[in-house]
Amino acid sequence: MLYLIGLGLGDVKDITVKGVEVIRRCSRVYLESYTSVLPGGLEALERFHGRPLIPADRETVEQHADEILRGADTADVALLVAGDPLGATTHGDLVLRAARAGVPHRVLHNASILTAVGCCGLQLYAFGETASVPFWTDGWRPESFYGRIARNRAAGLHTLCLLDIQVKEQSAEDMMAARKVFQPPRFMSVAQAAQQLLEIVASRRVGKKGKEPMRGKGEEPGGEGEEPALTEDTVCVGLARVGADDQRVVTATLKQLASCDLGAPLHSLIVTGRLHPLEVDMLRLSAVPDALIGLRMADSSTYTS
Amino acid sequence: MLYLIGLGLGDVKDITVKGVEVIRRCSRVYLESYTSVLPGGLEALERFHGRPLIPADRETVEQHADEILRGADTADVALLVAGDPLGATTHGDLVLRAARAGVPHRVLHNASILTAVGCCGLQLYAFGETASVPFWTDGWRPESFYGRIARNRAAGLHTLCLLDIQVKEQSAEDMMAARKVFQPPRFMSVAQAAQQLLEIVASRRVGKKGKEPMRGKGEEPGGEGEEPALTEDTVCVGLARVGADDQRVVTATLKQLASCDLGAPLHSLIVTGRLHPLEVDMLRLSAVPDALIGLRMADSSTYTS
Repeated sequence: MLYLIGLGLGDVKDITVKGVEVIRRCSRVYLESYTSVLPGGLEALERFHGRPLIPADRETVEQHADEILRGADTADVALLVAGDPLGATTHGDLVLRAARAGVPHRVLHNASILTAVGCCGLQLYAFGETASVPFWTDGWRPESFYGRIARNRAAGLHTLCLLDIQVKEQSAEDMMAARKVFQPPRFMSVAQAAQQLLEIVASRRVGKKGKEPMRGKGEEPGGEGEEPALTEDTVCVGLARVGADDQRVVTATLKQLASCDLGAPLHSLIVTGRLHPLEVDMLRLSAVPDALIGLRMADSSTYTS
Repeated sequence: MLYLIGLGLGDVKDITVKGVEVIRRCSRVYLESYTSVLPGGLEALERFHGRPLIPADRETVEQHADEILRGADTADVALLVAGDPLGATTHGDLVLRAARAGVPHRVLHNASILTAVGCCGLQLYAFGETASVPFWTDGWRPESFYGRIARNRAAGLHTLCLLDIQVKEQSAEDMMAARKVFQPPRFMSVAQAAQQLLEIVASRRVGKKGKEPMRGKGEEPGGEGEEPALTEDTVCVGLARVGADDQRVVTATLKQLASCDLGAPLHSLIVTGRLHPLEVDMLRLSAVPDALIGLRMADSSTYTS
């Protein structure tokens, strides 16, 4: 049996009792180490479970799945994943390979950032599609996450933005030279994500003022109407280390979040849509001064009472 | 401290190790018993944790929150909730009351049906807003969930439909007579939800054929265009007891699901949107014969390769 076991979000004790029991009886236990991370990493988990774990990077899971599945038709093998094991596409692929190899599988679910963001007080059913914000480079500044946020806001929905994680990434030079040298891990902060969003907001404002619009017609919803999809005063929520003892939740305007230091990773950012009065009351619990100015001014129409 | 502790989805062993430790040291532990349930209920949990639990129905949590919060500023009190504690609005309200009473709170997250549905192979980021399907009565047949499914499908998104749970509900007669007599618990099945959807699909088809349209213009997106938002051949996924040992996942057309018995509760229904080829491959693992006919015929445009 192949077990996909979620580790939850906070620390080693956020695994389920069932998960602990399964890990105890597995022949081999892999730790997926590239879509998310737990504080303390592999060492903390090995101490807690009292057994060695095999680190599994992207290459192992995506290109050497056979290695993980070896013998799993007769013995038990587990892949541990921070959060819920099926939040990321890749592990669906592993399930498919297992099925094709005749290996039964079982998922032990756990908390995922996709639902744990409910801790900020926003209602989960009022979220639209999730967006991913990648690190920009000099030559690569994709803006598709802005389009998704704009579409969600046009429908009154909140957007959870998952922020880039780069673990065991190669530089372009090392990749072309086929050198197995890896960059230090990078985790995007709420401030960095807010800054990238502000730059998009500013560039579109310039585009509207000038004679030539910067983008083609109908390229993205929310970018063409009279009202901008979001402004520097749009109410956002920054979250850090959700589920951990030192979790932080800060409600602030987009502009305020761009200079807000929420500490160690992992971070997530929510751009709010239409707010229910109960949600506004909840957001006040984590709001910095003037955070909700946007509600009464630029975004007053989003506050339905 | 007020702890909101998620119990996860399967059975008593789906609680986290941290959750077990917190329950051990709490003065009082309540079990929320109306937004969801775990197999075995209160008795199974009391046996597992070796301590008495206090059942908390909707009235206790919503109208007698002070009772739950009593003494929680100096001692530890927990409210156990199946799934993740913040999936339902009501518990946000409890958090707010705690904050206003000066009682600190902490959430121990766990698996939620909102993310565990990833087990069927559909990608979580491709889900739109979640819909709720209520039991229809003779005089009350709301269709708002259809509108939500239609909007999601128009955007290519999947819809998770949470199916009605009626625990400790009074009949209209008993309520008017102020009699504290409660109906037996009812849990909507996938077949019942599919049947209600089929009735909406059929009534709109009749409405289009006749001279008089059945609904006002622009009442709901997806209902007015040339193509119906969904048909009896739309590919859906029925899920039962997600996370439990006897979990069932069945991919079938809407019509097929209407006569599909998935056994004991809880059930959920997914109406698919645009499908990625990897998602189609995953759905094949749980598909009944001819389930994917809809993809190649009525819905062929939804299969992007």
